Amino acid sequence: MAMSPPACPHRLLPLSLGLFQGALLLFFALFVTYDEPSAQAEDASVVANQLYSIFPLFQDIQVMLVVGLGLLLTFLPRYGLSVLTHNFLLLNFSTQWALVLQGLLHCFHHGQVHLDLRNLLATEFAAVTVLISVGAVLGRTSPCQLLVLAACEVPIYLASEWAIVTRLGVLDVGGTITIHVFSCYFGLGVSKALFGAVRVPVHPKETPTPRSDLMSLVGTLILWVFWPSFVAVLCQPGDAQHRAILNTLLAMSASAMTTVVASSLLERDGKLSPGHLQNGSLAGGVAIGAVANMAMPPVAALTLGSLSAVVCVLGFRFLTPFLARKLLLQDQCGIHNLHGLPGILGTAASAVAILVASEDTSGSQVSPAVGNASEAAWGQWGDSGAGGQALCQVAGLAVAAVGSLVTGLLAGAVLRLPCLARPPERLCLDDSLYFKTMDQAGSRGPGSTPEEGVLALKEQV
Amino acid sequence: MAMSPPACPHRLLPLSLGLFQGALLLFFALFVTYDEPSAQAEDASVVANQLYSIFPLFQDIQVMLVVGLGLLLTFLPRYGLSVLTHNFLLLNFSTQWALVLQGLLHCFHHGQVHLDLRNLLATEFAAVTVLISVGAVLGRTSPCQLLVLAACEVPIYLASEWAIVTRLGVLDVGGTITIHVFSCYFGLGVSKALFGAVRVPVHPKETPTPRSDLMSLVGTLILWVFWPSFVAVLCQPGDAQHRAILNTLLAMSASAMTTVVASSLLERDGKLSPGHLQNGSLAGGVAIGAVANMAMPPVAALTLGSLSAVVCVLGFRFLTPFLARKLLLQDQCGIHNLHGLPGILGTAASAVAILVASEDTSGSQVSPAVGNASEAAWGQWGDSGAGGQALCQVAGLAVAAVGSLVTGLLAGAVLRLPCLARPPERLCLDDSLYFKTMDQAGSRGPGSTPEEGVLALKEQV
Amino acid sequence: MAMSPPACPHRLLPLSLGLFQGALLLFFALFVTYDEPSAQAEDASVVANQLYSIFPLFQDIQVMLVVGLGLLLTFLPRYGLSVLTHNFLLLNFSTQWALVLQGLLHCFHHGQVHLDLRNLLATEFAAVTVLISVGAVLGRTSPCQLLVLAACEVPIYLASEWAIVTRLGVLDVGGTITIHVFSCYFGLGVSKALFGAVRVPVHPKETPTPRSDLMSLVGTLILWVFWPSFVAVLCQPGDAQHRAILNTLLAMSASAMTTVVASSLLERDGKLSPGHLQNGSLAGGVAIGAVANMAMPPVAALTLGSLSAVVCVLGFRFLTPFLARKLLLQDQCGIHNLHGLPGILGTAASAVAILVASEDTSGSQVSPAVGNASEAAWGQWGDSGAGGQALCQVAGLAVAAVGSLVTGLLAGAVLRLPCLARPPERLCLDDSLYFKTMDQAGSRGPGSTPEEGVLALKEQV
Repeated sequence: MAMSPPACPHRLLPLSLGLFQGALLLFFALFVTYDEPSAQAEDASVVANQLYSIFPLFQDIQVMLVVGLGLLLTFLPRYGLSVLTHNFLLLNFSTQWALVLQGLLHCFHHGQVHLDLRNLLATEFAAVTVLISVGAVLGRTSPCQLLVLAACEVPIYLASEWAIVTRLGVLDVGGTITIHVFSCYFGLGVSKALFGAVRVPVHPKETPTPRSDLMSLVGTLILWVFWPSFVAVLCQPGDAQHRAILNTLLAMSASAMTTVVASSLLERDGKLSPGHLQNGSLAGGVAIGAVANMAMPPVAALTLGSLSAVVCVLGFRFLTPFLARKLLLQDQCGIHNLHGLPGILGTAASAVAILVASEDTSGSQVSPAVGNASEAAWGQWGDSGAGGQALCQVAGLAVAAVGSLVTGLLAGAVLRLPCLARPPERLCLDDSLYFKTMDQAGSRGPGSTPEEGVLALKEQV
Repeated sequence: MAMSPPACPHRLLPLSLGLFQGALLLFFALFVTYDEPSAQAEDASVVANQLYSIFPLFQDIQVMLVVGLGLLLTFLPRYGLSVLTHNFLLLNFSTQWALVLQGLLHCFHHGQVHLDLRNLLATEFAAVTVLISVGAVLGRTSPCQLLVLAACEVPIYLASEWAIVTRLGVLDVGGTITIHVFSCYFGLGVSKALFGAVRVPVHPKETPTPRSDLMSLVGTLILWVFWPSFVAVLCQPGDAQHRAILNTLLAMSASAMTTVVASSLLERDGKLSPGHLQNGSLAGGVAIGAVANMAMPPVAALTLGSLSAVVCVLGFRFLTPFLARKLLLQDQCGIHNLHGLPGILGTAASAVAILVASEDTSGSQVSPAVGNASEAAWGQWGDSGAGGQALCQVAGLAVAAVGSLVTGLLAGAVLRLPCLARPPERLCLDDSLYFKTMDQAGSRGPGSTPEEGVLALKEQV
Repeated sequence: MAMSPPACPHRLLPLSLGLFQGALLLFFALFVTYDEPSAQAEDASVVANQLYSIFPLFQDIQVMLVVGLGLLLTFLPRYGLSVLTHNFLLLNFSTQWALVLQGLLHCFHHGQVHLDLRNLLATEFAAVTVLISVGAVLGRTSPCQLLVLAACEVPIYLASEWAIVTRLGVLDVGGTITIHVFSCYFGLGVSKALFGAVRVPVHPKETPTPRSDLMSLVGTLILWVFWPSFVAVLCQPGDAQHRAILNTLLAMSASAMTTVVASSLLERDGKLSPGHLQNGSLAGGVAIGAVANMAMPPVAALTLGSLSAVVCVLGFRFLTPFLARKLLLQDQCGIHNLHGLPGILGTAASAVAILVASEDTSGSQVSPAVGNASEAAWGQWGDSGAGGQALCQVAGLAVAAVGSLVTGLLAGAVLRLPCLARPPERLCLDDSLYFKTMDQAGSRGPGSTPEEGVLALKEQV
């Protein structure tokens, strides 16, 4: 362990990150400004109110991504520092990179970019896709590989989101299709291309300990609590947002209960699997995104939450082992079960909700209840009818899944580049590969007798 | 440990939970809808503002219950996953069950239930009583028993809250009487009936470790920070809410300081007891609930916070051991010290505050300063005078304490049913009884030599 | 360890704290009231809106101080309970003490003090300086010493803040100069006077473990997420506050990225140092405080964030060891790197921003964009010009740094009083000195064989 190889050869990581930071500064210096301050006191009050309506939700989402998601991934017992750090690094890199890309697109059309909290929120959503996709290859990839993954995924996400929401007019306020389904299949594509046709053996450091499971569960609970903010932040203020929050709360609650039922029915002795709990409780939030602000009865949110928890737990129990055996597909965090399957379910639900709503009321009642930025989409629905809109939802799902899988495979091929320093299997899943402390602690260990080991441990406890 | 019995025989837990989920769906399908979306843009802005005034507080309370309270209970070193999970499960079950019960009551009178965030908040409060009561029997009860406890307690809470607030007109904006006193004596009743006349021996896994104490203290701090939201969420917006927040902040601050004083005076060597800190710091929040929105000087909030911390610490030091010895009363988390004693103190303070305020100003100044939903109560005070209102407060306390103790004893008797699978003492307080991972870790342990144990441990650290 | 000396002799800690609580109650009884409730319904709505605009930010700051900062300091592996508790105790003591001092000053001029959330926020800021300063002497001081430190620092902070903001008219909405620079040099002064001319040896319990580093990193992430609330809470609602939030977000993001770059360039093998990450990621937030609400382009915030992370990491790598060697200066948490150096950088940036802004627009555009409480200052700038204001910023820095260093040295001399019970070096950095549990755990340890040790440990894991 004292002779562990450098994390990235030739200091590739800091140099490329440093270059990127420089380019970012240049781009900002040339193209990005703030809004002019509003002159009237009247306007100032409007600005302040807009701020108070979005900022608490924005902070909730930041807590979810930085603390909640980071802790959720610490189920790997010796890799906690690394996952927290990589998650944090990728979040920052991806938002900055999305800011540049969005800005460049905008510059071509309108000149200078005016930065505000809503722009930042859009880049945050781009970053979420990266943080999810990484789950498939967690622990067996170097930071350099993760950054390349992020660099590939963000532009593809932006293109995919444009195609799905702006072109196809898909309704997806909570990102079920554009974020969850997209990032899931992108991540699986990367994993397949990266690990190829060899079966990834079970690593001894892969098994969670009670403590790492506890930390991970705390992460789940943080995500669970703040999920309504994530789904509702882009809704139109007023009824649509209120309904999106309520629907998400109901779906999350149903998920949590159903996960306990499903997990203890599937496991020997009726015991619970921590992994099921950590993921299944959140499945309802993934699925509800596409329908959260639609006009549907509360029972639909509960049903959708329950069903998504069931498919998530079944996925962990049967589908993941099956895919690993048949397709040699490695999915470390089970993102297919938490993001893929519930995402598909949520899309189907959105198609059904649109059809049912149009039958109920000929579309007149639904219209004001849906408050996304996609008024254009609603016009299209007006033209092509509810059936057309329902088809759109399914088409959006197909675009998201197929497009991301293909581009993910390509991105995974890029990640095989030797210069990106994929860590050798025996050094994987260990903080000591990327952090100084572990190394020191490690060097204290080997030469010691059991008694000294006990003492050293006692100090660590 | 490899032969540990099933957590619940005959898969009672998942089946009953599954049945309940089905019934819940049916009830929602038949009776629950959302408000009609408001047609005017004017109204939309009102709805949005109402949402922004309650949603951040609602999220704060969710963090308290899901993360804060969960972590507070992880002081049992080998039972962390279980307490977090049971807490989470009970919260969800109780809110759903309270939603059904509230809905049924409402349906009889008004037809369909219109779900909104305020309804959900009321059910959340019902769930809090369950989460508190469970503290008395934590670690020695099966999930089935806990669910039966919740199923019993929620309707009794709703009845008790109706009797105390609606019928008696008790003023209790922060739930000092209706939530804390009620749930404390309900929990103690359950404990007494469940563990009966045998002394519960000290379990080796009961002693907190430094790490479990640390996690628990983090939970305390989270609860401490967000407590003002819990007390103030139901206050009338404006001055009353502002004052409730300030009073709670002052009481919590005084509690924290006084706990340190009291604990280090009582312990040998002037050291602190982590248990005192974890609970005493929160005692002020319990006591302040009944008076938070009343017209009283800030010094009253400080005094009340200090006194409640003193009674809490004294309770831990003297009363709990005394009750365990004399009444053979098991109170695992010391809920009597955190919820019972400060609750009684807070009720007394509310009676005094009402009397003093009426003497000061003949009631004229107080009236606008109290902003609970209980305007009816204030009318009554107008009739019966401040003395009558003060008597009401005491009567409310008596109803809450006696009613909950009696019903708790009955509920505890139900929990003795053999089919609910109370875990045998030697298997108690251990995650491996309910979770898959611990079992695997356990099976790795027994056959190993000390050296292997050290290595296995090192992996876990 | 069974014979460890009392934490504070003669029960000094609880007695003095108790006396202080008594004095606080007396002061509150005599001088502090709430605002009169507003009579009109119109006003009630204004009060409510003011509350909703400040309360979520206030809660964010409470989370930062109580949970985030507490966890950040738990990098000392066996001292977690103590740092969380001392942090919590000092926060409460300092806010109460600041409340008394502010109140006394106010009483002399205006009679009764009207308590509101904004007053409490100001005292919270006073407490922050104490919590930062303590970082320099963490782990080697008794609670009594820390309380004396707080008792000294709060009045000096209030005087310093008055001199810098009110007299000099320094612009510093986020506390870069008044809070960070001040508390850093105060803490260093205390450390120098307290530990004097002897080199403090490295203590075996000083080295973080992977777990303690993980907890500390979680604290960093919590601070990172909520930092914008800290910087923006005192800004004028509207554009200035919006811009302060955006600038802080950009600076924090740049800090996080640059820390990774700088740390892996400096460390052997390109590995990261957890300490760099825990601190460097926050350096941007420290530096941005003085300029957050000024009219400057977004690229300035990014640049400032990057630079402050660089100086922070360089400080940890080179300056701290240098100061320890040459000046025998002990800085346990590296507060000079996180608060001192970025604070100086931020002050320089504010001077530059003022000069540049005045050249750009002759000051006309900047004026409405800056919304601190210091309109007087802006009048002064109107008189003395941008050059004068820029000089003021530098003068403010000098006052903060020199004033706090001198008073810190004096306060440190007071802390040497034998009655304050500085713990002997060999007992330092261990929870068992101040907490009951550790002592018990310790007494279980010594007599046991290695095998028993393993078993005991296993129970603890």
